[in-house]
Amino acid sequence: MAFCGTFVQPSVSPCIKYIVPRPNHGCRNKFSVRASASGSGDGERTIIWKEKGKWKIKYSAEKPETPLLDTINHPIHMKNLTAQDLEQLAAELRADIVHSVSNTGGHLSSSLGVVELTVALHHVFDTPEDKIIWDVGHQAYPHKILTGRRPRMHTIRKASGLAGFPKRDESVHDAFGAGHSSTSISAGLGMAVARDLLGKNNNIISVIGDGALTAGQAYEAMNNAGFLDSNMIVILNDNKQVSLPTATLDGPATPVGALSSALSKIQASTQLRKLREAAKSITKQLGDQTHQVAAKVDEYARGLISASGSTFFEELGLYYIGPVDGHSIEDLVAIFERVKATPAPGPVLIHIVTEKGKGYPPAELADDKMHGVVKFDPKTGHQFKTKSPTLSYTQYFAESLIKEAELDKKIVGIHAAMGGGTGLNYFQKRFPERCFDVGIAEQHAVTFAAGLAAEGLKPFCAIYSSFLQRGYDQVVHDVDLQNLPVRFAMDRAGLVGADGPTHCGAFDITYMACLPNMVVMAPSDEAELMHMVATAAAIDDRPSCFRFPRGNGIGATLPLNNKGTPLEIGKGRILTEGSRVALLGYGSIVQQCRQASEMLKEHDIYVTVADARFCKPLDTDLIRLLAKEHEMLITVEEGSIGGFGSHVAHFLSLSGILDGPLKWRAMMLPDRYIEHGSPEIQIEESGLSSKNIAATVLSLLERPKEALLFK
Amino acid sequence: MAFCGTFVQPSVSPCIKYIVPRPNHGCRNKFSVRASASGSGDGERTIIWKEKGKWKIKYSAEKPETPLLDTINHPIHMKNLTAQDLEQLAAELRADIVHSVSNTGGHLSSSLGVVELTVALHHVFDTPEDKIIWDVGHQAYPHKILTGRRPRMHTIRKASGLAGFPKRDESVHDAFGAGHSSTSISAGLGMAVARDLLGKNNNIISVIGDGALTAGQAYEAMNNAGFLDSNMIVILNDNKQVSLPTATLDGPATPVGALSSALSKIQASTQLRKLREAAKSITKQLGDQTHQVAAKVDEYARGLISASGSTFFEELGLYYIGPVDGHSIEDLVAIFERVKATPAPGPVLIHIVTEKGKGYPPAELADDKMHGVVKFDPKTGHQFKTKSPTLSYTQYFAESLIKEAELDKKIVGIHAAMGGGTGLNYFQKRFPERCFDVGIAEQHAVTFAAGLAAEGLKPFCAIYSSFLQRGYDQVVHDVDLQNLPVRFAMDRAGLVGADGPTHCGAFDITYMACLPNMVVMAPSDEAELMHMVATAAAIDDRPSCFRFPRGNGIGATLPLNNKGTPLEIGKGRILTEGSRVALLGYGSIVQQCRQASEMLKEHDIYVTVADARFCKPLDTDLIRLLAKEHEMLITVEEGSIGGFGSHVAHFLSLSGILDGPLKWRAMMLPDRYIEHGSPEIQIEESGLSSKNIAATVLSLLERPKEALLFK
Repeated sequence: MAFCGTFVQPSVSPCIKYIVPRPNHGCRNKFSVRASASGSGDGERTIIWKEKGKWKIKYSAEKPETPLLDTINHPIHMKNLTAQDLEQLAAELRADIVHSVSNTGGHLSSSLGVVELTVALHHVFDTPEDKIIWDVGHQAYPHKILTGRRPRMHTIRKASGLAGFPKRDESVHDAFGAGHSSTSISAGLGMAVARDLLGKNNNIISVIGDGALTAGQAYEAMNNAGFLDSNMIVILNDNKQVSLPTATLDGPATPVGALSSALSKIQASTQLRKLREAAKSITKQLGDQTHQVAAKVDEYARGLISASGSTFFEELGLYYIGPVDGHSIEDLVAIFERVKATPAPGPVLIHIVTEKGKGYPPAELADDKMHGVVKFDPKTGHQFKTKSPTLSYTQYFAESLIKEAELDKKIVGIHAAMGGGTGLNYFQKRFPERCFDVGIAEQHAVTFAAGLAAEGLKPFCAIYSSFLQRGYDQVVHDVDLQNLPVRFAMDRAGLVGADGPTHCGAFDITYMACLPNMVVMAPSDEAELMHMVATAAAIDDRPSCFRFPRGNGIGATLPLNNKGTPLEIGKGRILTEGSRVALLGYGSIVQQCRQASEMLKEHDIYVTVADARFCKPLDTDLIRLLAKEHEMLITVEEGSIGGFGSHVAHFLSLSGILDGPLKWRAMMLPDRYIEHGSPEIQIEESGLSSKNIAATVLSLLERPKEALLFK
Repeated sequence: MAFCGTFVQPSVSPCIKYIVPRPNHGCRNKFSVRASASGSGDGERTIIWKEKGKWKIKYSAEKPETPLLDTINHPIHMKNLTAQDLEQLAAELRADIVHSVSNTGGHLSSSLGVVELTVALHHVFDTPEDKIIWDVGHQAYPHKILTGRRPRMHTIRKASGLAGFPKRDESVHDAFGAGHSSTSISAGLGMAVARDLLGKNNNIISVIGDGALTAGQAYEAMNNAGFLDSNMIVILNDNKQVSLPTATLDGPATPVGALSSALSKIQASTQLRKLREAAKSITKQLGDQTHQVAAKVDEYARGLISASGSTFFEELGLYYIGPVDGHSIEDLVAIFERVKATPAPGPVLIHIVTEKGKGYPPAELADDKMHGVVKFDPKTGHQFKTKSPTLSYTQYFAESLIKEAELDKKIVGIHAAMGGGTGLNYFQKRFPERCFDVGIAEQHAVTFAAGLAAEGLKPFCAIYSSFLQRGYDQVVHDVDLQNLPVRFAMDRAGLVGADGPTHCGAFDITYMACLPNMVVMAPSDEAELMHMVATAAAIDDRPSCFRFPRGNGIGATLPLNNKGTPLEIGKGRILTEGSRVALLGYGSIVQQCRQASEMLKEHDIYVTVADARFCKPLDTDLIRLLAKEHEMLITVEEGSIGGFGSHVAHFLSLSGILDGPLKWRAMMLPDRYIEHGSPEIQIEESGLSSKNIAATVLSLLERPKEALLFK
């Protein structure tokens, strides 16, 4: 075999000596890596060293030296690295991720958990021909770094920067976009079938977490994969989560599904462990690599027989291999190479066990494993959270729900693996018997809530706006059609900032307000939110929902004891009285309307600002009044077409008002997806900022828009 | 024990002698049943007789004598029946269902398959306190008959009559409404949790088919039930379907999921059978009833150990009992009584095996088991199908898709266990390798299609409008956001007649047209449908969808060779030119607009009729033209608020047209659910008939509505 690498002496930290491979594109070299560093450093520098055969990292604020990683601009550069090289690469990659995310914020611990997996995958498989589909996708930072996007990692989740999730139009290496969980096996199976029909022979690898496995779609896909018997690889990344790994507020995710115990059983199986140890010692004695690989696979295949949990996957028709140490690059590479070389006739499930936050002590020790973080100090893990005088809408929701529940024993809470995100963790702490985390299972969550309501309880089903899409049929069929009083608390309504379009709650007004029995509300501030929680609690003869945004309240005066008062159903309110133009806002966008009104005052334009509160039933008296007393009525909402504006227009038309001189305009989210970025940039881009609203008013009044160049 | 029954000699068929119990409400009597009939009859009378210990039925057109069934007006009337009585009751019930459905049409074979189950359930459990939740619900006819609705069975699926599915506001015995599959375990679990929180102790029984078990929601619910460990009973009615048992066009449903083989394994387990036989002979020898019951349960519990498939349920945390002969009332009652008497600490799954169409030879022999039928001759099973000069929209869709696929190898079809309903059975016959039935798994179907599209195939995903609600998040997140060219063929759009609101496709225009990248179309007739299939095939840079109704085409001239021609995207057409009023229809409702226009002509009113074809992108030129040349523009659609009319209004408003003298009205489905009934009654009730449209025109023209008393 020709030797075509060169030895490079990179400018490294004085205490580390590397021999680094130059990437090459075909021949396989064996590079050795030497490291003589010790753990001692000056405390200000992130250092990576090898000790007793293991790589160690001491984290600090300074960028780590990453001589090997610096040579990887494409997965092909990893092809001829040895196992030792790959281990070094993993260590550098881990240090690089901690450094990078400490400066940008983002998803940390999931990415740290799959460093070895990502390195092994890109070493063995050949993207973009081979397809790696990352489920949920927040763990794709190492994948992004290894596929040419390292120079842009500092832009992640920022406007015009890299997305926080895999994204097809960002890189050819992102085979399928993600954001919502449990889609990867379905997408992978589609790609596998397409490959077969088109006569190709690339590999398809879906990487899915054990949490994502609680969702029905994953089961549907496995069942179908087992039947279609297309060759594909499912990697079950079992990091012992069964909640969607999100920033939990006060504790780690707890197991919610029975399946988790099956997975634990596999991991704990003594018989299996013994077999593995025995197999290991045998293969070590043999020393021959081919045999090693074979033995490794056989070893895991034997696990299949002894581990009772594996039959779950077997019965769905997947060939089970595992459990594999997901932090052992050697093991991962051995398994992947074998599976790649001798493809099974059908789907293979490789069960790997990893730790969230692996290799970064502050994450390993944190309750939430530092899942989603803001900027932090790499040395301590301390996050630089900006202090806000107000709490998040989520927290106000949770507080007022607790207040209601203290007075009404029938109130129960349901969420789908989002205790932290929805604030129901607080509720759970207060009422452990009355809070239900059903796992990543929005469909079940909704019908389960309907069952609770059918028997006389008062369920609050707290699901993000964009995630409720997954339970839409159940909302229609099991709740609304049966007129059961389930209350939907739809957090993350409207634009959501850095998470981008996958998490944007754009469609809920449209898809909820078309349902005949649903009461559809949106608070304009946190005090209103508290009143709407009370209103929803009081509505006991039909379903209801209220949407509220990501982010903090505006500092509104809260109701006494944080206990809301039920609002009159279908009644809005006028906030500011003006003339000629009325702004009728729905939801938190009302605040932009108020600001627009203030801006316009500076130009002696006094508009009326009203808060609709209800999209359904509409406050027809209020709309009639606004229409009668103004030349122009502008509806404003942070939602898609078909929502509040459409309901107002339909009423105006039916009542004949629109036949008259009234000008009606509907301001809403534009008919395209708004990319990730700061909330300010997003709202501006959507044309819904106070400035945009003021400009619309000026334009309708035929006043020069230059007036908008406000002082 | 006091004896308080009376012996009644009913007026029976001359060849049958019964001794019939009179229902009583507390004391238990033992009635013996004697029957001396033979199978010979005059051929014109349905007769029921017992022969060698088994009940037999000879079907004919005449109503059968059902002396025992006649005494059951409430489940409580079944409490003190003996096993022999219950068997007789089952025979009578079966004959009654065949007779009843032969006169009304409806769902036949699923109901026939659960006759013994229903009898056993109502004998052992006490509805309405105990809750029986029928999944999908088309098998609930025997349940309806036994719960006081027998006198109204002749009204089933008719306007103002009984619904074809369980319905909460129809009876207190209908614990939860159904129609869409796989919801029963979720609802049951909610009810079980509510019971526990409220300190009650009733039983919850969810009855779910093996077909419904392929849906992710069932898995989500089982996983959660296994974790919550509430006491509830899941009855898996395994009738060896893995497709939603619907009227298949040319063949029985075929297994599509790997799980089906696990279920088969259980059924076929030799070891298990031997054990069962052994246990049976032992219990027979013992003769003691208590022991019998115990032995029966133990016998099935032993099945648990030997049947490998059972571990699937075990690992989800359900205690497995089975498989049980679902046509043996004795076995069913024994199991149910034992499970009721000694409730498990957690969920129990009782796996019963039944036959669709059981006991009615024409159904047993039919390929589709006579799942959904029109009126038929009970003697032969021959259905009185009305001949139509046109085919169904479904068939035109299938034909044109086949034409497209003949020319383009990349076209593939996907459906979710609805090969018959969607017409893809035809496609499958022609292109077996290119058609994918993924099971009742709409979520997976959509993302699977997205995966196919991502790799360059041209997927047509055929899902009923109301069922696509179940894959909505995947449509948004995996298809539209990624701009992948998946084509959605949405059958059963708008009103659907006898199936009622659960199957009504009311919301699809609203929930699809709000998505930024989606092309949203609806054909006004079957020829247009064929063109839209061609259009969708040609759209390869973005997702698209088209909706079409249940029922037959209007007899439009079909394109040459049934091969459509791609339409210009976003272009509608004018059908009739008139003045003052323009009717702009979207979809098949255009035909009602045309008829309205004909009606109005009789009063010298000539309106313009236009066919929008596209809701998105809108034909803004056409709308501008119509607005300019008419005083009134009426949009008409068979869909909910937020759809086509809203999109037109938004454009009219933004372009300033609505500020002018134009009157715009939107006709759409009303803001309530339309109950089952004939299509004619439904459309009239919705206010969307030609007469309603004509009346709206007259009203806007300020012409007396009496003019509507057309000749």
